[in-house]
Amino acid sequence: ITADDGRRALALLSAMPPGQVGPLLRGLTPGQLAPLWRLLAEQNVRAAADLLDHLPDGHIAAMLHLLPSLLGAQLLEPMESDDRIDVLALLDEPTRHGVLQHLPAEVSETWQLGRQYPVESTGAILKSERLAFSEDATVADLVAALKRNDAQIEHYETRYLYLFDQKGRHFGAVPLHRLLLQDAQRPLRDWVDSGVPTVTPALPIAELKGVFDHVRYSVLPVVDDEGRLVGVVDQQDLQEALYEEAEKSSLERGGIFGGEEMRSMPLLTRGLRRLAFLLPSVVLSYAAVSVIALYEPVLEQVVLLAAFLPLVANLSGAVGNQAVAVSIRELAVDRIGSDAVGRVMRQELPIGLLAGLVVGLVLAALSLLRGGDHPELPWVIGGAYALSSVVTVLLGGALPLWLRRLGLDPAMLASPVLTTLSDATAFFLVLFLAQWWLLG
Amino acid sequence: ITADDGRRALALLSAMPPGQVGPLLRGLTPGQLAPLWRLLAEQNVRAAADLLDHLPDGHIAAMLHLLPSLLGAQLLEPMESDDRIDVLALLDEPTRHGVLQHLPAEVSETWQLGRQYPVESTGAILKSERLAFSEDATVADLVAALKRNDAQIEHYETRYLYLFDQKGRHFGAVPLHRLLLQDAQRPLRDWVDSGVPTVTPALPIAELKGVFDHVRYSVLPVVDDEGRLVGVVDQQDLQEALYEEAEKSSLERGGIFGGEEMRSMPLLTRGLRRLAFLLPSVVLSYAAVSVIALYEPVLEQVVLLAAFLPLVANLSGAVGNQAVAVSIRELAVDRIGSDAVGRVMRQELPIGLLAGLVVGLVLAALSLLRGGDHPELPWVIGGAYALSSVVTVLLGGALPLWLRRLGLDPAMLASPVLTTLSDATAFFLVLFLAQWWLLG
Repeated sequence: ITADDGRRALALLSAMPPGQVGPLLRGLTPGQLAPLWRLLAEQNVRAAADLLDHLPDGHIAAMLHLLPSLLGAQLLEPMESDDRIDVLALLDEPTRHGVLQHLPAEVSETWQLGRQYPVESTGAILKSERLAFSEDATVADLVAALKRNDAQIEHYETRYLYLFDQKGRHFGAVPLHRLLLQDAQRPLRDWVDSGVPTVTPALPIAELKGVFDHVRYSVLPVVDDEGRLVGVVDQQDLQEALYEEAEKSSLERGGIFGGEEMRSMPLLTRGLRRLAFLLPSVVLSYAAVSVIALYEPVLEQVVLLAAFLPLVANLSGAVGNQAVAVSIRELAVDRIGSDAVGRVMRQELPIGLLAGLVVGLVLAALSLLRGGDHPELPWVIGGAYALSSVVTVLLGGALPLWLRRLGLDPAMLASPVLTTLSDATAFFLVLFLAQWWLLG
Repeated sequence: ITADDGRRALALLSAMPPGQVGPLLRGLTPGQLAPLWRLLAEQNVRAAADLLDHLPDGHIAAMLHLLPSLLGAQLLEPMESDDRIDVLALLDEPTRHGVLQHLPAEVSETWQLGRQYPVESTGAILKSERLAFSEDATVADLVAALKRNDAQIEHYETRYLYLFDQKGRHFGAVPLHRLLLQDAQRPLRDWVDSGVPTVTPALPIAELKGVFDHVRYSVLPVVDDEGRLVGVVDQQDLQEALYEEAEKSSLERGGIFGGEEMRSMPLLTRGLRRLAFLLPSVVLSYAAVSVIALYEPVLEQVVLLAAFLPLVANLSGAVGNQAVAVSIRELAVDRIGSDAVGRVMRQELPIGLLAGLVVGLVLAALSLLRGGDHPELPWVIGGAYALSSVVTVLLGGALPLWLRRLGLDPAMLASPVLTTLSDATAFFLVLFLAQWWLLG
């Protein structure tokens, strides 16, 4: 694909079905992307910039580190402001500085502004492309502005235009569709929709979702403490942020921290990031198996227990991680608060008992098959699982809430910590009951 | 909250900050929601319907089963068509039939139409509220239609209007902002934007994302095989679908199948759904530990191995599940196809070697502490982990692709199957090497 003819590459990409361009481009490493985009930009910098939308932000940032900053700026300029901020945030300081120097001053300002807002706030996902007018502007002024922005208009919010007063404060939102067939000279303020609520940039996105659920508008003005309009936020941006959040926590739960891993990233980066999860896991897992070493005499007499230890531990972990998954989900959609520990435990207890009974019976039956000279083994295994199931399901339900209350990320920590606890619980219960029942 | 005064409840809910209404309502069970909504609807059915947006679809459906079908219809009618279809899909047949009877005929038709499209296709997320006109309609006709739909206009797509020809086929899309200050009598077709592409209802949503990445338009017309406009789809709907998909697979990976679990659901339903994951896990886990039983003589001589079996198995599972998480993510965003097994394995192999070396050394050191009379134990444990890490990381990377190729859901199956394979691999390698090295 690193053909020496940029025009041919551009023609090829334009002719492909849109659904196939993304997978093709995303399969390339930053080292392959940089020369390709250089070729594409030589032909048509705008078309090259448009193709960037197919790449994840991490790919774009990695590629920009390999391109001259002028070209980087040319590629970033046509982007939507919220997407551009996401990419700028991923650049290292010198590259970002270089790129920003070649971009218009207001881009630099928007970047500075965007940095102020916390990651999961409305300010972090707002878009600055909107039509804003003084409150005494007329329909004719609007039409002139639309013409001026024609090339970029698809990036602008055009369902509403926003008016500001003489002090620059947000005055109101005017639905564009009310302006059809109106007199060019009438002021826009005559059609303000007074029902449109404003939101602040500091509003967390979970609460922003509550606001959108509450109103019929799909795009809202974002107004700062001084009453100035700083941008607009629409449901698409919100859903996109929620999606990225969900994907990030899904990866975290699989042991991939620090955002997305792309297999096209350098091996050492990928390896170190994965080890960052594995090495603490060694400590946790070693702590759990230390319980086993305490009961070596029991194991010496009933070696068969060595096979049942991981079985009971795995299945305790499974039932506990179900409770973890439901609690993480309920926290994510604001269905419960981090203070609902008591309620969650009451709702998990019967599940733990049910699973303990059913799975415990199955395990008892399986141990009967292998029991040999220990007729009490089924009671030990079934009983240990039943107790362990109840304990881990309660811990699993509560742990994400406790972590959240400590300001820690449940998606990242709940599952490994729970698995350690459930392993230790299961090992202890099997060996303790075995000592007491079989040898006592 | 089940106050006897509906008006008070409605006033209370309207006065609350929007971000708090959702968590409050979502904490209620369907049995508590039904009488509350009955009270709210008595006061103001439209306001009651608006509040439904705060509830997940499953809650709304559960509540509708407890309400008279006329009231159910009144609550569903003001919803956006795509959201309404999601709720209708969750109702049991008699309730749905009852509700549909009280709804306008076109809702019933849209429901029938929506059913035809596969779950993850564009047809399943399209919205039928759009402004559609014959190609010879004029600006004045549009203004009249906007007035007619005024109460519902926030649900309508108003960035574009859509023209159809005499045979009812899609003719083109007109950006509303081009119509300002235009003559009332001029036909709308004069301002068709010929760049707006159409999509088909059968297009999978992963490919729809590719199309949106390729164009600057944020809303696209959906046209069927006969060329008729069946609805519009915007990026918000797409992002919402992607988010729900991500949440569903995140829950599945935690062992919660069959969509979302709400702790307000009946206990038996929750219990059975969780057992549906646990019972197959018993089989898988039992299969893995059967390897241990084969090596009882080895264990009898080196009981200490009982503690290292779960340790090596857990850490093999951890490194394998990292590869699973990355592959699932890369499949989900179409970064790789299910035929990329060879490439994925080549990119995972060095990670497996690195993790095997580093974690293997740590485990060898830990076993040295406990080794006692078996100086070769560190070699057995470290060596078993190094080999197991390589095997499971390759399996973990490839398994989601193999499952996808078989038409199975990687999010649901990859992790439990991988854990079984990594357990069995780890158990076998530790015990085999122990037999060979310590006792050989």
